[in-house]
Amino acid sequence: MATAGKVITCRAAVCWAKGESLSIEEITVDPPKENEVRLRVVSSSFCHSDLHAIQGIKVPGLVDVQFPMVAGHEGAAVVESVGLGVTSVAAGDSVIPLFGAQCGVCVLCKMDGTNFCLHSRGTRGLGVMMDGTSRMSCKGTPLKTFLGCSTFSEYFVIDEPCVAKISKKADLKKVGVAGCCIPTGVGATRVVGKVKRGSVCAVWGLGAVGLATIMGCKLAGASTIIGIDVSASKEALGKKLGCTEFINPTKLDRPIQEYLQERFGGGCDFTFESIGNVMTMKAAYESVRPGGGVCTVLGVSSDPDKFVEVHPHDILAGKEIKGCYFGGLRFRFDVSPLVDEIIAGKICCDNFITDTLSIDKINWAIEQMKAAQGIRYVLLF
Amino acid sequence: MATAGKVITCRAAVCWAKGESLSIEEITVDPPKENEVRLRVVSSSFCHSDLHAIQGIKVPGLVDVQFPMVAGHEGAAVVESVGLGVTSVAAGDSVIPLFGAQCGVCVLCKMDGTNFCLHSRGTRGLGVMMDGTSRMSCKGTPLKTFLGCSTFSEYFVIDEPCVAKISKKADLKKVGVAGCCIPTGVGATRVVGKVKRGSVCAVWGLGAVGLATIMGCKLAGASTIIGIDVSASKEALGKKLGCTEFINPTKLDRPIQEYLQERFGGGCDFTFESIGNVMTMKAAYESVRPGGGVCTVLGVSSDPDKFVEVHPHDILAGKEIKGCYFGGLRFRFDVSPLVDEIIAGKICCDNFITDTLSIDKINWAIEQMKAAQGIRYVLLF
Repeated sequence: MATAGKVITCRAAVCWAKGESLSIEEITVDPPKENEVRLRVVSSSFCHSDLHAIQGIKVPGLVDVQFPMVAGHEGAAVVESVGLGVTSVAAGDSVIPLFGAQCGVCVLCKMDGTNFCLHSRGTRGLGVMMDGTSRMSCKGTPLKTFLGCSTFSEYFVIDEPCVAKISKKADLKKVGVAGCCIPTGVGATRVVGKVKRGSVCAVWGLGAVGLATIMGCKLAGASTIIGIDVSASKEALGKKLGCTEFINPTKLDRPIQEYLQERFGGGCDFTFESIGNVMTMKAAYESVRPGGGVCTVLGVSSDPDKFVEVHPHDILAGKEIKGCYFGGLRFRFDVSPLVDEIIAGKICCDNFITDTLSIDKINWAIEQMKAAQGIRYVLLF
Repeated sequence: MATAGKVITCRAAVCWAKGESLSIEEITVDPPKENEVRLRVVSSSFCHSDLHAIQGIKVPGLVDVQFPMVAGHEGAAVVESVGLGVTSVAAGDSVIPLFGAQCGVCVLCKMDGTNFCLHSRGTRGLGVMMDGTSRMSCKGTPLKTFLGCSTFSEYFVIDEPCVAKISKKADLKKVGVAGCCIPTGVGATRVVGKVKRGSVCAVWGLGAVGLATIMGCKLAGASTIIGIDVSASKEALGKKLGCTEFINPTKLDRPIQEYLQERFGGGCDFTFESIGNVMTMKAAYESVRPGGGVCTVLGVSSDPDKFVEVHPHDILAGKEIKGCYFGGLRFRFDVSPLVDEIIAGKICCDNFITDTLSIDKINWAIEQMKAAQGIRYVLLF
């Protein structure tokens, strides 16, 4: 492309300091260095983790947010150009940028049961490239990424092990959800919870991750899929995507775990928590049956001081609690097949898009998210 | 046998009421009814769960201790006679009585990943046979079992699905530990934690269950096995059975989880808690590595109001906490092979026997257990 090797000037939503509104700025994006890829973002949605990042909330060992930052980690893009040594993607490829890596050669990539690649672990959480520097700047100030991604910018540079090449048939205006909520929810039902045909499942929180989890339960052949949310407005979409019923726990005359334990002879086979609240994690855990019931936590807690209370008798009785980022899927290899399922209509993401908007409206979208309105607001460049 | 079909009069250690000392009494033991087996106990050791039972401590959904009771659930016995319909054992067989059942036909017995047979679930916890009555009585009062077992009596009657036939070669004076601590510890490393060759393991609490866990880790080929106990007296036996090192956590200058995380690049591969204390469960959980480290809880908490605090970020990072009774082993089918391993010298139980005693000394042994002295005191009839 004509821009290859040159500094690109483009628009981005910059968060100058913790908790501030985003500011639409002209920024510069340097060419990719060795093993780096420069992307042109086509679409980007908002995940609650972006809100957490903007609010300065850290996840120990994973995210140590730094400002000024360009957030956004759920998007679809085209490769603008690649740095030296990049072999897995080329200019013009359709890709999903990823907040996690899969180098394929580290000890964890070669190990079963984890998607915690060691590549760029120390730098990505700080929002810088592996050499410790940034490729974006504004008014002379280097800009940080959020976990290696900046899909709230028209262009950004990412490490090669954090880029998944996808089919050219994918609609890049819609498949950005393949960068976070779809793999997180669907993956959790396949890789972590391992939902079985004919099982009883319950999902706490019908946001994008919860809805993706419901689709995953349905695809796995669960016979009962209970959507649980305090907002009645979530019922219709939940049922459209696979819920066999919907429960507003505030309308029950007792704790939901007691209700589910009694109704299903001990509890559900599989539960999923996609809110990030330690009390709903406790409820989801206590709602699984003894002797092999599995609770999978997907929601990211924003309070580092709060713990989930797990009763030792429940542990001994064989109730399991586990969790994952990105649904336990491998960050690169498992994304392309997931996008193929979206293209084939097996996984639906049209219903996730509450509204589309231009970058100028980004703060409005953030306010909607804070007010728990809608599912995904999609920024189109 | 000459006693078949007749009421047997024998000696037993009766706990007349919660928290009282045991009283050596003459009791009567009725013949076994349909699908029941009458056992002559050869040896019986003391497990902390027997102390909990005598103290009236309940485990919701599992143990609802009733008095008067004859406790004891870790012993070896000979079948004295069988009731109608019993096919798996016959008079004269060497057996291990079990506090759990394996009927082989219920939905849970046919399910992978659980040893929670539904057989006699409702009655065993109450210490009665499936028809709701008792086979033992003293001075006209029916006596209850502890989870279906009464190895503190010379004779008792048990449900057939709770009896494991073992090799005639087994020394019944020594293999009683195959009824609880050995399967709990060894099984946990095989069925639940699934310890891998070359892995780093840590075991909290070097009582009988912890020592059995250490033997299980060694048999699985773990390269580092850390024994953790506040009592320095446990070091020698721990090392004899497989510990590569011993840590007294009170001698460290920081919490043991911080020490283990730093030393092993994130944490251990496998940890085991065999104390039953929610604080050591928390330490054992936090000591496993992100991305697939597994903490297995074996210790039974005696405080129903205490929870383990589990941090949601640790859950999302892929640290697992799970637990089991009886090491996750099937109560009948997996005991005989374990006894064969004891006979073959692969699993050692000689070192577990701190002392042997007659039933008259039973209260002395209980005091030793309460004072955390020794490993197993073995009652010989």
